[in-house]
Formats: sequence, C-alpha cells, structure tokens
Amino acid sequence: MSGPFVLINDDLVRADQASLLVGDLSIQRGYGIFDFFKTLDHAPVFLDAHLDRFFHSATQLRLPVGKTKEELKALIQVLQQINDIPDSGIRLTLTGGYAPDGYTLATPNLIITQQPVQLTSTAQFQKGIRLITYPHQRQMPDTKTIDYLMAIWLQPLIREKGADDVLYHQDGILSECPRSNFFIVTADDTLVTPSRNVLKGIIRMNVLALARTQFKVEERDIRIEELPTAKEAFITSTTRHILPVTMIDGVSIGSTPGAISQWLDMELNKLVRRAR
Amino acid sequence: MSGPFVLINDDLVRADQASLLVGDLSIQRGYGIFDFFKTLDHAPVFLDAHLDRFFHSATQLRLPVGKTKEELKALIQVLQQINDIPDSGIRLTLTGGYAPDGYTLATPNLIITQQPVQLTSTAQFQKGIRLITYPHQRQMPDTKTIDYLMAIWLQPLIREKGADDVLYHQDGILSECPRSNFFIVTADDTLVTPSRNVLKGIIRMNVLALARTQFKVEERDIRIEELPTAKEAFITSTTRHILPVTMIDGVSIGSTPGAISQWLDMELNKLVRRAR
Repeated sequence: MSGPFVLINDDLVRADQASLLVGDLSIQRGYGIFDFFKTLDHAPVFLDAHLDRFFHSATQLRLPVGKTKEELKALIQVLQQINDIPDSGIRLTLTGGYAPDGYTLATPNLIITQQPVQLTSTAQFQKGIRLITYPHQRQMPDTKTIDYLMAIWLQPLIREKGADDVLYHQDGILSECPRSNFFIVTADDTLVTPSRNVLKGIIRMNVLALARTQFKVEERDIRIEELPTAKEAFITSTTRHILPVTMIDGVSIGSTPGAISQWLDMELNKLVRRAR
Repeated sequence: MSGPFVLINDDLVRADQASLLVGDLSIQRGYGIFDFFKTLDHAPVFLDAHLDRFFHSATQLRLPVGKTKEELKALIQVLQQINDIPDSGIRLTLTGGYAPDGYTLATPNLIITQQPVQLTSTAQFQKGIRLITYPHQRQMPDTKTIDYLMAIWLQPLIREKGADDVLYHQDGILSECPRSNFFIVTADDTLVTPSRNVLKGIIRMNVLALARTQFKVEERDIRIEELPTAKEAFITSTTRHILPVTMIDGVSIGSTPGAISQWLDMELNKLVRRAR
C-alpha cells in the first residue's frame, strides 16, 4: 500500500502519507497550476517544453515556483530514482499555499507525483474515440490551471451519450477537449487546429511542426458546421499522442484512422523516441 | 500552534494536522463545493438555509454528502463544543475525493472547519467599500463551488485600482462579487438585485424579504450604465451583512451609507439576533 514516493516541497514522502493541510488554496479556492509529462524507459519526453510551460502557468497565476528549472530537474531525477518506474507520468502541481485567511495567495506548495502510465495501444488507435460537443470556455485557457470542474462534471453526460470525451465550443467555435487538443484534416489535405482559447499542448506543437514539413497547416477557428466536411479528425495529448476521432455528436467523421493521422502518429512516435 | 480542531469525515483532528492526500480531486482538479455560516454567541445563524444550500450544491456537483442534515448538525455541535469559539465562521467543504485515476469522482471528503470571525464594524459600514467591475461569469453560478480562480487572481488588480473588491459582469450585465451579492437602490427607492447567473446568498434572501415589507423590490438585470443613476449601492454576505458601496470604477454612488441601506442593516441585525 505504500505505492510510489511523492515530493512535497523538498520532502520525499510515501504516497499514502502525501498530503496538504486543508487550508491550502487548492482545497479552499481551487487555485493552482500543474504540468504533466511522461517518461519512456526512464527518459523524460519533451521535459524542457513541459517545464517551460509549467513556469509560464505559474507566472500567469502569480505563483512563484521557488526553484529554478535545473533544480526541478534534479528533484525529478531523485523521484525517478527512488520510484524506478520506467514508463510513467510525472505531474508537477503548484498550489496557492496556506493562506491564513483562506483567500490571499501564500507561499505555494509544490507537489511532484509519479505513476505508471498506460499509453495508447495500436488497437485503441485503430478503434478511435467518439466525442460530444458542449458549450464551455475554460477560464485562462493558455494556463494549465487545476480547474477541471466542467470536465469532471460532464463525465456522466459523456457516458450517457455513448461517447469517450467532450469537445468544448463557444458560440459554435470549437476549442479543445479537457485534456487534449483537437485537429481536423480538410478535403484538400490541410491540417487545421483551433488557434484561440486553447491550451497550447506540447504534442500539439510537435504535430504542427511535423505536419508543416509535408502538408498545408492552418491555425484558425473551426466551426461546428465545418465538421461534416472533415476527412479526418484526431486529438493529441501527452499520454494519448494522436488518437483518431470517429464520431462527433453521433455523426461519423470521414475515414478513421485517416492517412494523415497515421503518418503523423508514425512520425510522432519516431520523434518521441529521439526526444528521450 | 494547535489551533482549533477540524472535522475530516468522522475524525476530529487538530488544525495543524488536518490534511487531505494529494490525490483528492480538489487538489488535482479543483473539484468541490462548500458552504459557510457564522455563529454568534455560540448560536449558528441561518443554519438550515446554509445546510439546504450545501446539499443543493452537492447534488448539483453529483457529490453524495453521505450524511443527513441532522447528522451534519450533530457533527457541527461536537466541533463547536470542543473549539468553544463564540463568534465564529464554520465552513463545510465537500471535495471530489480520492480518485485513483485523478479524474473520476470518488467518495467525497467532508471537511468542517471553525475559525474566529471578524464581522463588519460600524466604522466599516460608515466608510463603505469601493468596487471595480470586471468581465467574468462564474461557471455553475447557482452552485457554491470552490472555484475562485478569477477572484484570487484579480486581487492585485483590485489593490492597484485602489478598490476593495470586484463586481463581475458579462457583456455589461452585472452579476455579483466573488463572495457577496450586489444591490442598488434606484431614484424611486426601488431595491434591485441581479436575478440571473448569481449565487443566491442567504443574506440576499433575507434582505429581499425584509425589503419587500417596505419598498418596491425587483430581481432583474442591472447594466453597468445604470450605476450612475443609483441612489445607493451595497453588497451582502454572511460575514459582512450589508456593506455600502461608495464607488464603482472610480465613480461615486449616490449617498453612502444611504437611508435604505441603513434601515435594511438595522432590520437585518435584529433578524440575525432573533435567528440564532
């Protein structure tokens, strides 16, 4: 029952004892940011990009990290050595800290956890996922906050509709899924992903760079009405890489998995192996 | 350093040891609800209304409380007896619980804290407060979630503008302050408060009931442009009761404290003394 170890500030503690006092602003006021990356065969993937985004999110939410990027890397190494989980997800969370009045930012608490991670299998890639759309705009979209109120709340609706995840839109303009970015391939083989009001995913960035070597790429608004014309659709995330979308709101999307989705997935897998 | 005791689920623990494991969905995903009431001379004020709203919020967020209203009252009594704080604020928080996957609702954790409370003084009432407006709509406004991301984030801007709090609006339609409801008195002595997209405060409800015995009352949209025509403005909350607003976005509001604000405050104080 001890499970892997967790870092809380500078202390290594067993997961079943890793806790925050209830006065922390994450518990009191939902205030905090995080980032999440994976290790493959012990090697962190795109670590610098994730740490850069972690510092960006911290700055946006006025939370001093209290450590340099190099110090964080050293802490992550310590955690990896003691936990010894080859393929894992590592999450860094930074909260608003212990506010005596339950409202004013205090010294942030830093939590680093590591857990075994299940990556997308070939079968899952072939099967793809189904989405429903839902009107919602995350607050502070370019910051990876801990606010997943709507995402968690929508789980029963997603299940009820026979879907796997939700795709947010505002006034019909699509943005993102709660934990992944969204892409379509248009009839003329252009790769398109929303440009505004989304979290800029690390896999999103790498997929865009890969695609630009071979295809026309557009970062622009996608309206719900454009979906039926798409040849392919997929989501991207750290754990799922590229996952084809077969259906949105009960309507089938082009071919699944599509040729461009497959090529990008193959190239992304090569890139990830090189990036370790 | 022991401070008052805290209830976590069915355990009484010292405040400096009252903690949640970091896997709780409040820390991981900002998922939880709460309610907050005061005791005066050991007597809870409007306890039934607060507990009803607590259960409403829990239902809205699909969080089983796991206890009846009467069981909660009994727990609150135990906490009050051990802490012995005559004038206090008692907060009940219900979180998403320990989700093994950090994403799926689990058995909620219930936290009950009690702390000494500072109520509004006569001097503060006379001085009033200054607000700035800011475009924001809370998600799930009729549910008292722990989502105060925007409220905490705006603190430096509020200070920079020489103000005390923020009044949210969406497309120019005012809603509420992060922890209080907003009212104006129009030129013809009508009391007006926003009807939509707000948390229905317990003090708001009581102020409306009191006002209806003497004045015209309207629950309707208030646009920012209507503010300069207001004779009086005030906010209401559990700790602050009625607090006059002297200025919004640097523009003075009618007379402060206004005659109707003063009458309502006087009657509310009588009501609170009777309600204990």
